[in-house]
Amino acid sequence: MPTLILVRHGQSQWNLENRFTGWWDVDLTEKGVAEAKAAGALMAEKGILPTAAFTSFQTRAIKTLNLALEEAGRLWLPVTKDWRLNERHYGGLTGLNKQETRDKHGDDQVHIWRRSFDVPPPEMESGSEYDLTKDPRYAGIDIPNTESLKLTIERVLPYWESDVLPVLASGETVIISAHGNSLRALVKHLSGISDDDITGLEIPTGQPIIYEFDDAMQPGERFYLKDMK
Amino acid sequence: MPTLILVRHGQSQWNLENRFTGWWDVDLTEKGVAEAKAAGALMAEKGILPTAAFTSFQTRAIKTLNLALEEAGRLWLPVTKDWRLNERHYGGLTGLNKQETRDKHGDDQVHIWRRSFDVPPPEMESGSEYDLTKDPRYAGIDIPNTESLKLTIERVLPYWESDVLPVLASGETVIISAHGNSLRALVKHLSGISDDDITGLEIPTGQPIIYEFDDAMQPGERFYLKDMK
Repeated sequence: MPTLILVRHGQSQWNLENRFTGWWDVDLTEKGVAEAKAAGALMAEKGILPTAAFTSFQTRAIKTLNLALEEAGRLWLPVTKDWRLNERHYGGLTGLNKQETRDKHGDDQVHIWRRSFDVPPPEMESGSEYDLTKDPRYAGIDIPNTESLKLTIERVLPYWESDVLPVLASGETVIISAHGNSLRALVKHLSGISDDDITGLEIPTGQPIIYEFDDAMQPGERFYLKDMK
Repeated sequence: MPTLILVRHGQSQWNLENRFTGWWDVDLTEKGVAEAKAAGALMAEKGILPTAAFTSFQTRAIKTLNLALEEAGRLWLPVTKDWRLNERHYGGLTGLNKQETRDKHGDDQVHIWRRSFDVPPPEMESGSEYDLTKDPRYAGIDIPNTESLKLTIERVLPYWESDVLPVLASGETVIISAHGNSLRALVKHLSGISDDDITGLEIPTGQPIIYEFDDAMQPGERFYLKDMK
């Protein structure tokens, strides 16, 4: 039975500092490392062992994957990395903590950006210290300079269809290690969640989520691996 | 200019215990972790940054690669893993330390196995605790149960030609994180070393070796990255 494991990266330094991170490449905290290892140990314990792996271009997701795979005895798996699994790009909010954002833009506007489906934050200013247009990892890629959740979905889902789904359909157990919003994109699609509801759905860090697919490649109910009997 | 970086994994637990390891999957020691990070820091310092990566199916080489890439800010690179870059398979010697091997087989025989080009050690006994024929990582692969250096070369070089060389020839800076004998295979080929001389050539752990290729894809003299001006 094709099985999909979704895991959001463990706590990052900027999760801890409550700053908008998006595409900025921050590392895991010690707690994040422990969460990643625990995710791998849980896969081994439950006997749900991935056979193929996908992740983003971002250190926190790649390290979460590597730590989990090592803990599960699967560091040798083929791993595909793609920018289309990156976190939502927070544009001009990148690097601001929640208080700085409120001070600069006001509570109401911040609430709109965080919780609306299709309103992107302001674009990143040119010359920003968080500008990634010259980062060699994105060479040749027309990277966004801000994204709503809707825009995030519009690059995650085509990648899911073209690159992940065929591997899953061949009978593999696929793990995707990614980010709050790139995983929201997948959960929205697979669980049929509305535009209004998806922005309020929290994906916990380091907690594997499972979908089992039937012969017609229809996903069943999603559940947490920790709740599997 | 196409550039090749070869790095042997950092010290492993069985390097430390002086045991024949081969295909058995042992972890890095703390010293091995530090060597891997130092290799990555050296690449960053010298500005020789890989753009594509290859490694074996073995944890010690994969972790060395991941640690080095992270240190060099390149964890996002595409990584290809293949069993043909694995260490030489030591057959029935796997798991024995040097003293146990001498006690069991005699000094002269051990010297022959260690230093001859084409004499493989005895095959691994069926039922050995080090038997990997049921390891899922090798499913579908006709794995050896002992190898001489000559046999190791006979699976490393075809992989080099078919999978690595085309990537290098496209202008990439390729890193291969592998093992003492799979790297000897490559160094023998690229530096034109004789059958007699190659068995005595030591590849130091965690010390990047560089080959630069000309337009006709002929390799220049090999040198250590640490010695680069």
